[in-house]
Amino acid sequence: MADYPEALEELVESLQQLPTIGPKSAVRLAFWLLESPEGKAIRLAEAIRGARLHIRTCSRCFNYCQAEVCAICSDKRRNPKTLCVVVQPKDIVTLEKTREYRGGYHVLGGLLSPLDGIGPEKVRIRELVERVDRELIEEVILALDTTVGGEATSLYLFRQLGPKVTVTRLAQGLPAGGNLDYTDEVTLGRALRGRRRLDDMN
Amino acid sequence: MADYPEALEELVESLQQLPTIGPKSAVRLAFWLLESPEGKAIRLAEAIRGARLHIRTCSRCFNYCQAEVCAICSDKRRNPKTLCVVVQPKDIVTLEKTREYRGGYHVLGGLLSPLDGIGPEKVRIRELVERVDRELIEEVILALDTTVGGEATSLYLFRQLGPKVTVTRLAQGLPAGGNLDYTDEVTLGRALRGRRRLDDMN
Repeated sequence: MADYPEALEELVESLQQLPTIGPKSAVRLAFWLLESPEGKAIRLAEAIRGARLHIRTCSRCFNYCQAEVCAICSDKRRNPKTLCVVVQPKDIVTLEKTREYRGGYHVLGGLLSPLDGIGPEKVRIRELVERVDRELIEEVILALDTTVGGEATSLYLFRQLGPKVTVTRLAQGLPAGGNLDYTDEVTLGRALRGRRRLDDMN
Repeated sequence: MADYPEALEELVESLQQLPTIGPKSAVRLAFWLLESPEGKAIRLAEAIRGARLHIRTCSRCFNYCQAEVCAICSDKRRNPKTLCVVVQPKDIVTLEKTREYRGGYHVLGGLLSPLDGIGPEKVRIRELVERVDRELIEEVILALDTTVGGEATSLYLFRQLGPKVTVTRLAQGLPAGGNLDYTDEVTLGRALRGRRRLDDMN
């Protein structure tokens, strides 16, 4: 039985570690990396090293950045009195794409999950509470998943912050282009409870 | 609008070059590479460099290898009088998995495709013909795709080699577990023309 040469086998195995890359995809990608112009393959190798070397977390909001403080935190035109709480840095880019929000962020780094041993001390809740006090924040917007873990974390944060500051969370309801037929009861129930006057829509 | 920091953006773009990796997958993989244990990310970067550095083509059959001659060509227990012609090194591993073949290989590197400007001089046909002469090959097995390009290349090779050596090609017919209902007419026609006596099956 002939196998791939060692260096190729190692490449296939390294690729297979990646999420969503199975054995067949790993082989396809490995051959591409071997057969593409050398610059493209080396560019990827360099980019991996570069990202691990240069990317750090913002000392204020824990977003990814290359400086001490991220581009959002150092943008003077943004409202410093509002904080939007997200789980991971990726969520910030998703929210920024809406162009609806001009305040600051706070990256928790995870959701509370007592069964997995993730308690309040494992996510950045203490840092959030301290920041709310120190920066005299007026509104904290919770932009967490609407899963069990997300809801539990939102509730916990509300209990911590509710007495000091206005705590809001993203509206729940029908998605844009949504079809009543295909909407589950929980979402529909929340959409009903959260109904708004037509002249209140903006 | 906040974007990813530069080094992360560069990683996302490098990943997006890969085949079958779209913008969303590239972001997902980039975050994984950033957040996984550093060793895993650096291992991939090293594996890419290592493969580009160490993998070469066998001087005899053009399979990938790390030495002058590949493991198959230097295996003395294999039949040196039979050559199996494939398009790419990956096909060798696929054929080896069947454990049905114990001869040598020859990697063409492509299929003839006059419309794309790929004539006989662009694939390793001259090398194959010379090798058949030099190594006194007795049988050449064509294991090419059964596409238009594969069939045209098989026909061309048969014209070049037919007068000197036995040229065979892989049987065409129903796949294992195949269902007559779902078999196209061309395949079914070929299966009919290639029918074999029951007591001839092995």
